[in-house]
Parts: sequence; structure tokens; C-alpha cells
Amino acid sequence: MQEIKNNLFLKALRGEEVSRPPVWMMRQAGRYLPDYIKLREKYDFFTRVETPELACEITLQPVDQVGVDAAIIFSDILVIPQAMGMTVLLEEGRGPVLPEVIKNKADIDALITGETEDRLDYVMKALALTKRELNGRVPLIGFAGAPWTLLCYMVEGKGSKTFDKAKQFCFTQPELAHQLLQKITDVTIKYLKAQVRAGADTVQVFDSWSGMLSPSDFNIFAAPYLTQIADAVSEDAPVILFPKGSWYALAQLSKGSASGLGLDWTVTPALAREMTGNNITLQGNFDPSKLLAPIPQIKKEVKEMIDAFGVNRYIANLGHGILPNVPVDHARAFVDAVKEYV
Amino acid sequence: MQEIKNNLFLKALRGEEVSRPPVWMMRQAGRYLPDYIKLREKYDFFTRVETPELACEITLQPVDQVGVDAAIIFSDILVIPQAMGMTVLLEEGRGPVLPEVIKNKADIDALITGETEDRLDYVMKALALTKRELNGRVPLIGFAGAPWTLLCYMVEGKGSKTFDKAKQFCFTQPELAHQLLQKITDVTIKYLKAQVRAGADTVQVFDSWSGMLSPSDFNIFAAPYLTQIADAVSEDAPVILFPKGSWYALAQLSKGSASGLGLDWTVTPALAREMTGNNITLQGNFDPSKLLAPIPQIKKEVKEMIDAFGVNRYIANLGHGILPNVPVDHARAFVDAVKEYV
Repeated sequence: MQEIKNNLFLKALRGEEVSRPPVWMMRQAGRYLPDYIKLREKYDFFTRVETPELACEITLQPVDQVGVDAAIIFSDILVIPQAMGMTVLLEEGRGPVLPEVIKNKADIDALITGETEDRLDYVMKALALTKRELNGRVPLIGFAGAPWTLLCYMVEGKGSKTFDKAKQFCFTQPELAHQLLQKITDVTIKYLKAQVRAGADTVQVFDSWSGMLSPSDFNIFAAPYLTQIADAVSEDAPVILFPKGSWYALAQLSKGSASGLGLDWTVTPALAREMTGNNITLQGNFDPSKLLAPIPQIKKEVKEMIDAFGVNRYIANLGHGILPNVPVDHARAFVDAVKEYV
Repeated sequence: MQEIKNNLFLKALRGEEVSRPPVWMMRQAGRYLPDYIKLREKYDFFTRVETPELACEITLQPVDQVGVDAAIIFSDILVIPQAMGMTVLLEEGRGPVLPEVIKNKADIDALITGETEDRLDYVMKALALTKRELNGRVPLIGFAGAPWTLLCYMVEGKGSKTFDKAKQFCFTQPELAHQLLQKITDVTIKYLKAQVRAGADTVQVFDSWSGMLSPSDFNIFAAPYLTQIADAVSEDAPVILFPKGSWYALAQLSKGSASGLGLDWTVTPALAREMTGNNITLQGNFDPSKLLAPIPQIKKEVKEMIDAFGVNRYIANLGHGILPNVPVDHARAFVDAVKEYV
């Protein structure tokens, strides 16, 4: 196995001492980068996702151009519903649409749970190619959507401010909801293990909509499946869980088998450390909108953030994906501020 | 002054002992009620808001038909930007649009801060009429949007998942942002005091987007203005603050002059009580989507919620506005479950 030259990220995840925190940004391979926009003008979304050479090129852009300490494979959480047989439409600049949603037991029974690795072979090829191209410069992160978040899209059929169709499904037909969540979980575990075999050094599970759930419903519809995934995949590689908005679950999740927990920007570093008892590596949590502030202010607030989290068991990141309208030099200022931290 | 027959709500706000908690629902005068939909088909949104007889009729519907313990005047938080001279468009079923947004100092200087009570005379007339029609059955709640939330609309020009234009304005031009927030605050204080004179027994301040802010930015752009309003208006009537998503601010806000704090459904009753030291009346926090669950489950979970909050210093409510697709008998089951609490 190839040695990774800049292994700050993996050291931080393992809880080893580091000279400074590693830094990357969620959605770092994305629309704020002019070179990404050029590719977007030539190839539609799923062509970019499904063509290993394009996914690799896009994944490397922020490593080369912004100087992040980790690459995250360019892909989408909705490749899992696709691999399970659902149609996913994605128009540029609009959210995803799944025209045939899950409504009943027959729909769940019809979902495909086999051949996950074959069906998502393009992701494995993209990971393998990217790993080779990275040539050990920085670690490579794989990812998947969490079962609750995928259920949201598979039942609601599109993005939503409240996901009340998805929640209604869960509240009125909990047995079916659990069947669906378990199927997604089984497929996701196979998918993430395959990603590690293909070259991912770690994986992150995005529960983008877990904060829609009350703490008790989180414990019913989200936590058990996050835990299954973390338990199974952490046998192979460190796992980072990002339950966005579910600050209330930090204490509980810190006691499980995940190596890292992602935080959104509504949690203070002090409270996050207190809730997690310094048992786990924390990742986050700069307000993505704050990258629109003047550069000196970005640098000042990044320093304050690291002061508050501490250098160890910490991965600097945003609290959610980078916004499309962030100037590249502001993104670079964020990364530089972490690298300059003393 | 007329005696209010069912004064559970005001007793709970004052921290007096009650036999059971009072109950009302945010957006209780709204689209889930068939009689509201009939009026919506005949009159456009601002006609309903600006015609005292219609606003009164809509305000009374949930009192008569669902049996809530308080009425809240039918109106909109965007009447303040309107009264300050901005154009607000509202198409049915879509969010509001403010075609000419605040961009610079000239735009802020041009805002009207005088004649608030005259400009919003239709709200005062609606309150006075509703007060008379209620005939002391239940208390009447007035309301306004919080300065931060109104700034979001006035700068962004429409609803947004991230309000990053509004945040960019605050982060890059903080002095202008504070000038704007102060103007909104001054107008809002006059507006709420006038509402109390017109008949409101209490007022609620909705900071619907405060949870978009990090805890430190909340302290800069939201908290000082909420505090000014609570300090000034609580001289005349009890004030309820609802900083949605800003669970991190509960401890701090509980120490101010507000009588009540609204909670969304991501906060457990136990944590909310712990953070606020049982110093203040708490209001909330049933997941609005949970009203789509079967009635027996709604009743069971309402009972658990009251068990957890306790009977005193508590006002049962949803954690956000009622959804348009909730069956009326489910809304009634929510209210009945509180009334049946023993």
C-alpha cells in the first residue's frame, strides 16, 4: 500500500497528535470552481458522475487549486436509489426529482439490493483512478447518503423544506419505513466497503436531513441505521458521520464506532467537545456563508474556530457544503488560514 | 377591561399554577381549515390581511372549530417591510417576493419609520374587532417578525434555503446591517405597543430564520434586537420570543424580560428546562409533521410531551406552523389531547 505523504487528515481521524489540523471543504469539488463550471457546460451531471475520468478530474481540482488536505470523490448520494432501481432526474441548478416514489410494500419489495458493486462500478473505477492520480499526495474520502436522508428523497420524490410526505410515511407505516431503511442500509454497507476496496481511505455518511427529526424520532428512524453502517464499515476504514442539524445526538454518536463526527455551524466548539467528551474527532463547522465575508475576517474567524476546537482530534471544514457563489480566493483563504495556524 | 373567561394561557405566561396547560397552534388560522380555503378562493392574501372583518373571521375560525385556548390575529410578518415603504408580492402557494431589495445606505435611509400605527391601522382595527367578537372567550395574541428575520427578506428579496445574500450583506457591511436592524426594531416596538393598545393580550416575536446564524452571529445580529423589543414591549404586555432553530440561545434569552420562549421540535423538554433553569414559560414543540400520524399516536405523544414539560410554566403548541395538509380532526385531536391531560 502506498504511503500518503500528507496524512494529517488520517492522523486527526485516528486521534494522533498533529502539528496543525487538516482541512477540507464539503462540496469542495463543485460549482465555485471555474474549471468545474467549464466541465459542467460540456457534460451533464450524471455524465460527470458516471465517467471515471471526469469524476477524477473534478475530484482533483480542489486539491490542485485550493490546496485541501483530503480529496473527496465527486459523486452524488442519489446513486444508491439509482442502483436500487429508481429513476433520478437532475436538472442543472434545480434539485433532484425521483418521478416514481416509494409508496407501499410492493415498491419496497421491487427495490434491487444485489449487485451493488457492479451497478456502481463507475464509482469504484473513479476511486481507483483518482487514487492512482493522487499518487499519495493526500487521502481520498468516499461517501454515501445516510438511510434516513435517502428515504426522504425516495418517498418525497424531491427536496422539501419539511419532508412531510416522507415523515408521514414513517409515522403512519413505521414497519414499511424500517423495511426500506434496512434495505438502504444493507446496500450502503456493501457500497462503502467496496469504496474502501477501490481506494477510499475513509468514508463519510451524510445525513443531510436528520435535523428534520425530533430527538426521539432520530433514535427510531436515523440512529440505528447510522450505527449499523458505522459498525460494519469501521472494520475496514475510519467512518465519519455527519448528522446535519442533529446536535442533540452528538453525545450518543460519539460513543459508537465512528471515528469522526461532522458538525454544522449552530454548535459551538465548546459545547460539541463537552457533549462528545473529547472521545471522537470533530469535523466542521465554519458557516458556509461566512466565506462571503472579507478575507481578513475569514482568517480571523478560522483562527478563533481552531483555538476553540483545539489542534488535535479536529478536522477543519465548513458546517455544510461550500456555496456556489464563493470567490475561489475566499475558499483558498479559508484553507490557508488553517495551514497558517500556529 | 373585560375579564377573560378562559385565561389558562395568560396564567401560564405569568407562571401561575394551572389545572392543565393551555394550547394553541402556530398558523392555526390557516390553510388546513376548509372555511379558510373558501375565503382564500374569494379574496387575495393582502385583501384578507387588510380587511379587518376578514382578518377577524379567519382569526376566530380555529377558536370556534378547533377549540384552542388563544386566538392569534391573522396577519403577516411582512406588513412591517410594507409599512416601511417596500413592495411585497405574495402569490398564493408560493413564498413572498420583495422586488426592490435593500442594497445600500440610500435604501436604508429611504425606509419610512414614522406613522407606523397609521400605516398599519388595518391591523389595529382587526385586533379591536376580534377582541370585541371574542367577547372574552380566550386571550388574543398579536405578533411581529423579528428584526433579523425581516432583514433576511428585505435583503434577500425572497425565501431561501441559506439566506446567503442577507448574510453576505451582514458580514460585509455590518454597520449598515445594524442601521437596518435598528430601524426595523424601532418600528416593531411601536407596532407591538400599538397592537397591545388595540387589544392584544400578549405578543409573539417570530425569529423564523435565527437558526441560520451561528451562536456568535446570533449574538451580533439577532439577540440585541430581540432583547430591545422584549424590554420595551414587556412594559405593556407579556412577550413570547420564538427564535426557531436557535436552541443554543435558550439559556441566555430565559434571563431577559420575555415571559415565554417558543421551542422547535429538535429540543427535548428536559434539555429546554435545564437550559432555561425553569425561569420562563416554555411553548412548543410538537413536530408539525407528527399531526399526519394516526390520531391515537398523536394523543399518546402529546401526553408524553406534557409529562416531560410539566403542567406549569408551559404552553402546548407545535414546534413550527401547522402544515396545510393536516386533516382538521388531527388538529383537533392535538388540542383535545392537551385538554384531556390529567
